[in-house]
Amino acid sequence: MARANEYFARLSSGYLFPEIARRINEWQLRNPGKKVMRLGIGNTTEPITPHIAKAMKDKIDRLSCRDTYTGYGDEQGDTALREALRRHYQEEYGVSLPLDAFFVSDGAKSDAANIQSIFSNSSIIATQDPAYPVYVDSNVAGGHTGSYNKAYDGYEGIVYMRADESNGFVSCPPEEHADLIYLCFPNNPTGAVATKEQLSAFIDYAHKHKSIIIFDAAYSDYIETEGIPHSIYEIDGAMDCAIEINSFSKNAGFTGVRLGWTIVPEKLVCEDENTSLLHQYWNRRQTTFFNGASNIAQAGGIAALDSEGRKECASLVSYYKQNARIIRKGLEETGLTCYGGIDSPYVWTKCPSGMSSWEFFSHLLEKAHVATTPGSGFGPAGEGFVRISAYGHREDIEMAVKSIKENI
Amino acid sequence: MARANEYFARLSSGYLFPEIARRINEWQLRNPGKKVMRLGIGNTTEPITPHIAKAMKDKIDRLSCRDTYTGYGDEQGDTALREALRRHYQEEYGVSLPLDAFFVSDGAKSDAANIQSIFSNSSIIATQDPAYPVYVDSNVAGGHTGSYNKAYDGYEGIVYMRADESNGFVSCPPEEHADLIYLCFPNNPTGAVATKEQLSAFIDYAHKHKSIIIFDAAYSDYIETEGIPHSIYEIDGAMDCAIEINSFSKNAGFTGVRLGWTIVPEKLVCEDENTSLLHQYWNRRQTTFFNGASNIAQAGGIAALDSEGRKECASLVSYYKQNARIIRKGLEETGLTCYGGIDSPYVWTKCPSGMSSWEFFSHLLEKAHVATTPGSGFGPAGEGFVRISAYGHREDIEMAVKSIKENI
Repeated sequence: MARANEYFARLSSGYLFPEIARRINEWQLRNPGKKVMRLGIGNTTEPITPHIAKAMKDKIDRLSCRDTYTGYGDEQGDTALREALRRHYQEEYGVSLPLDAFFVSDGAKSDAANIQSIFSNSSIIATQDPAYPVYVDSNVAGGHTGSYNKAYDGYEGIVYMRADESNGFVSCPPEEHADLIYLCFPNNPTGAVATKEQLSAFIDYAHKHKSIIIFDAAYSDYIETEGIPHSIYEIDGAMDCAIEINSFSKNAGFTGVRLGWTIVPEKLVCEDENTSLLHQYWNRRQTTFFNGASNIAQAGGIAALDSEGRKECASLVSYYKQNARIIRKGLEETGLTCYGGIDSPYVWTKCPSGMSSWEFFSHLLEKAHVATTPGSGFGPAGEGFVRISAYGHREDIEMAVKSIKENI
Repeated sequence: MARANEYFARLSSGYLFPEIARRINEWQLRNPGKKVMRLGIGNTTEPITPHIAKAMKDKIDRLSCRDTYTGYGDEQGDTALREALRRHYQEEYGVSLPLDAFFVSDGAKSDAANIQSIFSNSSIIATQDPAYPVYVDSNVAGGHTGSYNKAYDGYEGIVYMRADESNGFVSCPPEEHADLIYLCFPNNPTGAVATKEQLSAFIDYAHKHKSIIIFDAAYSDYIETEGIPHSIYEIDGAMDCAIEINSFSKNAGFTGVRLGWTIVPEKLVCEDENTSLLHQYWNRRQTTFFNGASNIAQAGGIAALDSEGRKECASLVSYYKQNARIIRKGLEETGLTCYGGIDSPYVWTKCPSGMSSWEFFSHLLEKAHVATTPGSGFGPAGEGFVRISAYGHREDIEMAVKSIKENI
């Protein structure tokens, strides 16, 4: 008799965003004709820019021509795109990485979820709390954790690194031992960034414990504060203990086009005797479970990394960051306490009057018709906050902020 | 200390196609200036057709416009594409499936590899031998098998269903119990197809053993023989015991564009008491580990399924099938014994003079400068055969066949 994966049964509830969508739909049914202003999901709203769009259309023209058509590409990604990524790290961050450390993917979410599969089930996972739910959920489904424990609203076997007002939403390395440490800066959901010193503490921890850091840098282009690292490899010693994941979703508007990359250096230390094992296994994983990102998207990625493309991405990022400033200013004027929204598209907003995250979510939906994301959906330490996303047309952001100011 | 996934260490060797590429490169270095004629990988060579290309370019135009831009789509796929797939099954195969049974993916390979992850590690896997290596490799990496056993060139714990000349390359259901049964028709690599009666025997087995069949139908559009089922759901009783995987790679030329789909009916029986568990878990897997196929590729998929798109796909398929006829005819004229190549782009060719698969591979490469795929790479029962692929420009196919005829 076929049996389902027992680990899936441990997952405590549906994935956060479908649950939010369900609640909004339910509200919409009760309120026909009224419009929900969506500041929930981090979903881009501004069009693909001309240079990048042209590159993708040109690629379709080449695919439509007998002499320039190509079928399967390398599972690791087009060499031209990997070269462009390598140059990008060298020129913008002063980071030297070999070409074969780069693996092009169909987006950061897939890689953030799949990366656990190359590690032993006996691995102890550490994650920031709050955090993007995919890190925890993929490890639960992958069998790297114990069961869900309702008493502390978390999974047994996971080391939660609390991020809250007391530490400026930058967790410290844990007291306990962990083998795999997920970090995300600029942080989703809190919008916090980590300094060199704060990241160095994690590198030191990783060296001491022979752990691997999974560094999610999907929002790195949003950093404007001087001296904040954009890549974990700007920190000395990261090359033998850190994997970095990034994406074209939030700077080039590729949330639907799907393109990202992951850096798995050969030098990663794992089980001492064979230092390239993780690189080999990720290569094996990608060549067996994946067949490359769409070649049309990859042509767009190459264009996004040249000088014209970088300018277009910068203008998109700048637009969303201006939205973030408008949100933060508006909410602070109503007396709400806000974090983030400077080096990040997310404004992490404290619920007023002791409301819970879902209570404030419902309150904003009912009173102001604004959809947000309940902080508790990102982990127990997110309770008492909501995440407000700066992704939206300017006039919609302004209308939502006005509605919040007038109605709550 | 971080430890790598122990199951990956069980994988016996590198993925087949990179190994072939390595051997061809090594030959090329020894033979500068000479050209390899590639009849190895099943890689499409003919351009994307006009109607489908236009749909993708139009999609990029819509993504480039503020009013029609869209970001994240549903992880399960665009509703319009799922509707088009539903209609396609209804109209072409007379198969009625509900919309939510369809999950759009970035290609059949990913789904064929990932589907094992929703099943318990205690599941016993059965696979045809020879078979597309991804079924076995993904189950090894996923921990569903024992170790590689050199003595019988297979993995412990896997039930191998031998397909050879004696059964016309259509395996029979096994004597032993298996929980998960991988079937691929038209078969890669042998080119064999299964009749209704042959598939019914597997459905009966699945009902008796409460097993689930994973049916890979990636080459279904190549079927021309009357009465051969295109979909497993044409067989009575399949709806509660079969998952079907398919792709736009081999009919629309999307090997590099990346688009496929998987059908996971709600009715699948698993652990008796909860019949929708596998559907729920696949939905959870796709929403957690995946973020939808590229929206540009999906626009192409919608076009590929309308009447103009179906005509274009049929002409592409017809082109490759004519190649297959040329290959089979040419090889038979040299006295080689060939199978397949009728309802399939693959000609399964018996090695002459008792040569092994890799020996005949090397022989064809050295003498005729033609690259093929060694049958033994698909499993022990593939030993003594090579797979010859009909993917190529007509003149290249003719030249390769001529070279084989003249040089071996």
